[in-house]
Amino acid sequence: MKWDAWGDPAAAKPLSEGLKGLLKQALGVEADEAPQLTAAEVRLRPSAISERDLDALAVLVGAAYVSVLDGDRLPRAGGKSTPDLLRRKDTGEQDAPDAVVLPGTEDEVAEILRYCAEHAIAVVPFGGGTSVVGGVDPIRGQFQAVISLDLRRFDRLESIDVISGEAVLGAGVTGPEAERLLGEHGFSLGHFPQSFQFATIGGFAATRSSGQASAGYGRFDDMIAGLRVITPVGLLDLGRAPASAAGPDLRELFAGSEGTLGVITSVRLHVHAVAEATHYEAWTFEDFAAGATALRAVEQQGAGPTVMRLSDEMETGVNLATTDKIGGEQITGGCLAITTFEGTVEHAAARHDETRAVLLAHGGRSLGAEPAQAWEQGRFGAPYLRDGLLAAGALCETLETATTWANLHHLKAAVTTALVDTLAETGTPALVMCHISHVYPTGASLYFTVVAGQRGDVLEQWDKAKTAAMDAIVGNGGTITHHHAVGADHKDWMASEIGDLGATILRAVKNTVDPAGILNPGKLIP
Amino acid sequence: MKWDAWGDPAAAKPLSEGLKGLLKQALGVEADEAPQLTAAEVRLRPSAISERDLDALAVLVGAAYVSVLDGDRLPRAGGKSTPDLLRRKDTGEQDAPDAVVLPGTEDEVAEILRYCAEHAIAVVPFGGGTSVVGGVDPIRGQFQAVISLDLRRFDRLESIDVISGEAVLGAGVTGPEAERLLGEHGFSLGHFPQSFQFATIGGFAATRSSGQASAGYGRFDDMIAGLRVITPVGLLDLGRAPASAAGPDLRELFAGSEGTLGVITSVRLHVHAVAEATHYEAWTFEDFAAGATALRAVEQQGAGPTVMRLSDEMETGVNLATTDKIGGEQITGGCLAITTFEGTVEHAAARHDETRAVLLAHGGRSLGAEPAQAWEQGRFGAPYLRDGLLAAGALCETLETATTWANLHHLKAAVTTALVDTLAETGTPALVMCHISHVYPTGASLYFTVVAGQRGDVLEQWDKAKTAAMDAIVGNGGTITHHHAVGADHKDWMASEIGDLGATILRAVKNTVDPAGILNPGKLIP
Repeated sequence: MKWDAWGDPAAAKPLSEGLKGLLKQALGVEADEAPQLTAAEVRLRPSAISERDLDALAVLVGAAYVSVLDGDRLPRAGGKSTPDLLRRKDTGEQDAPDAVVLPGTEDEVAEILRYCAEHAIAVVPFGGGTSVVGGVDPIRGQFQAVISLDLRRFDRLESIDVISGEAVLGAGVTGPEAERLLGEHGFSLGHFPQSFQFATIGGFAATRSSGQASAGYGRFDDMIAGLRVITPVGLLDLGRAPASAAGPDLRELFAGSEGTLGVITSVRLHVHAVAEATHYEAWTFEDFAAGATALRAVEQQGAGPTVMRLSDEMETGVNLATTDKIGGEQITGGCLAITTFEGTVEHAAARHDETRAVLLAHGGRSLGAEPAQAWEQGRFGAPYLRDGLLAAGALCETLETATTWANLHHLKAAVTTALVDTLAETGTPALVMCHISHVYPTGASLYFTVVAGQRGDVLEQWDKAKTAAMDAIVGNGGTITHHHAVGADHKDWMASEIGDLGATILRAVKNTVDPAGILNPGKLIP
Repeated sequence: MKWDAWGDPAAAKPLSEGLKGLLKQALGVEADEAPQLTAAEVRLRPSAISERDLDALAVLVGAAYVSVLDGDRLPRAGGKSTPDLLRRKDTGEQDAPDAVVLPGTEDEVAEILRYCAEHAIAVVPFGGGTSVVGGVDPIRGQFQAVISLDLRRFDRLESIDVISGEAVLGAGVTGPEAERLLGEHGFSLGHFPQSFQFATIGGFAATRSSGQASAGYGRFDDMIAGLRVITPVGLLDLGRAPASAAGPDLRELFAGSEGTLGVITSVRLHVHAVAEATHYEAWTFEDFAAGATALRAVEQQGAGPTVMRLSDEMETGVNLATTDKIGGEQITGGCLAITTFEGTVEHAAARHDETRAVLLAHGGRSLGAEPAQAWEQGRFGAPYLRDGLLAAGALCETLETATTWANLHHLKAAVTTALVDTLAETGTPALVMCHISHVYPTGASLYFTVVAGQRGDVLEQWDKAKTAAMDAIVGNGGTITHHHAVGADHKDWMASEIGDLGATILRAVKNTVDPAGILNPGKLIP
């Protein structure tokens, strides 16, 4: 993972000539890449952790697993939102955790939390570091120091029950590693969020991640059969059966807890046999409304695609859905939709047939398999594009929400208007693209990509646009986040989401399991 | 609802000659019905509520909606477990709430809770009164008095969104009334637990009810899009979107809260269009293991039946699955399975075809549609049979759990052995029948029906058997309840289910929303 950009340096994408043309024509951005700060040039806030604390932590986990080196602190200095990446370019002093600690066992985690609670050290649990909502910001809060608690040594497939389709994976296992470990047994998790290549099982659980195959395999929270969580006051081992009526579901209190209530060390997950067959079919609809109605019909009938997504006219126009062709020749007018179907040979065929019939009945025109396969091949590419755009002097960021089908178009228009109008006030036109990537019988997610010109203090510029978008979401019936989570960036809107009493309940739970308040301060809980 | 038996007096079932023969032969029970206590002969604990409190409550809700009459207190004196029904036959003084209060608005509920918190009055929220786990027992705890807070006036379909398939139903709407109200708009909830005819929307939510069509439409907790809950310290309006990553899911804290954390006044539910087509097919398998493997294959492939259940050899042998024929001519040897398929014409046909292929491949032999239709027609009849058995001098009760597929047979054997051995110690043989009625990709529920002879103090006799069964469940990897909930009866096993820290968290939430502790004391929270 690069410290100042997304992912694998080798996968970085230079901007195509088509995209450069689009930037110039639509936004007046001249793509000349400014020289970048190197990691060696970055100045980090000096570590504030005391020698005594460092020594004590080294006794708990071993000296090799505690570090105050800048080379270890910098990659854990924050997540990967556009503001994060802009801050990484700052030539002034940058924020960073005071130390990085890498425990290897649950007992070590428990001992670290006890020590930190007693010695006023904040703890930020760290997985892949792919948060785009400030979820791993090294906020000290009222404490002496803040450590990054990196879970990467929890990297095992701890057990697998091939009869029931349940596997216990360590919190530090990454997306690709989970698929590799499960694949050895003929199983798959099927969780493919944009962060798949770098993010971890613990991070997926802590943030209620949702993958691109959520229509078929569910959100990550749906896959959670059990959770082990270490809190400063003890261990929780939650989840007894595939389903239970034994009171409130406490798994649902720790899923989405974002490191504020405990450290997730392993997750028992519903896994499925590797698909025998995969079908692909891309579609075009006359407009977004027609496409959304068709997707709704598929979901409400329960026809059962594995992936189903729909780009709006603007996103379809710039080919954002197939990032390799962005700005190039258009695949289709109208709106592009992607469907895939996985399972046994019979299952994939049956689901494909049923879905196709519904889409045809709702005005869809098939584009064949190729554009859907191209989407799958390029699907983890979008964040690399953002790197290129930011470097070229454009402002680029994404945000997302979800609502009911009945409210979908109203919410989409409100968010788009808020973004375009606010960015216009900063002196730039904006391209606002949108897609539906997660569908439910009662509604869908809306995922927005914004590209505009950089104007003045870009952090401030984006903050204005983001604030306007969030207010539009809250004011028009959307959830403040469908799958990016809350972190530091959405915390101010949490009380609108769950009410003041909801926030009071979260604080009460926090006070119970983390009375010293050391766990991920400044995140999630208002 | 009868005060001393299940449901509608007109639907009571006399024991068939076949069943009487079975009782005599297998259990030595001579079916001679003892004379029953009449409602007029019951002696209730005198109301302990003060005139001042009664007057105050009458001011809050209107005098017509407060009652201390025995005729109102008796039907709310408890639920419908076998111990409840045995206690109703007691010629001594019986426990009952000190008053019944029927609020008509959320404001009235809020005012009642505030008043009761200030004046040390316990509050038992009351829906259909069908709890079989002591969930509505009128426990005073440390308080002066206990009132039954009957929600039946929250009886409306408050709104329906036909595009998104969401409907807001008042907490007091019963199962049949929900279907009638939704049916006027062409929609259905599809929630058909055994208690369907009498239980309410609020009760379903508060207890994580699961209906017989859970394979197709999900458990009740899956259907909950939003909840309104009145607590003594304020209102919660939870659930913003079809899915969200905005932190812990607080709906899941109040679903299953069993009246201990607040009073649910309405529920926003996922509803679906009334099915165009329903297919039925019954099956027989050589034994329970073969049948369970077949059901597992269907679920893991995602073939998609609406109902899928499997009776074990003993249950199949006495035709318990089709209560009208109980003890009569056997439909089949081996194990009977029922499947149904609902949806659009194409959807029902596709799901039926896919499921049939899997069941055939796993050794199933089709019995055609008729036994499945007979099951559906008789499906709410079993509790009436229990009334007849209890009156005839047999002990009859049900209990349930769930576990993974890999652990299913081990758990089933352990629970069966615990029941048979413990009842043998009391001097009676026991028939223990079992079925799978709820299936998941990772596991299934197990539902046990026990019939034995009554020996000595029957409450004590059953308590021994139940305790042994619960210990067997906890000791062998089952959940303490899959859909009956916790109430008073399972409370002692709650800490095994969620751990001591889990229990501490529930108490912390309780202290936050109900600091006086008036809500349903003695239930759920250990």
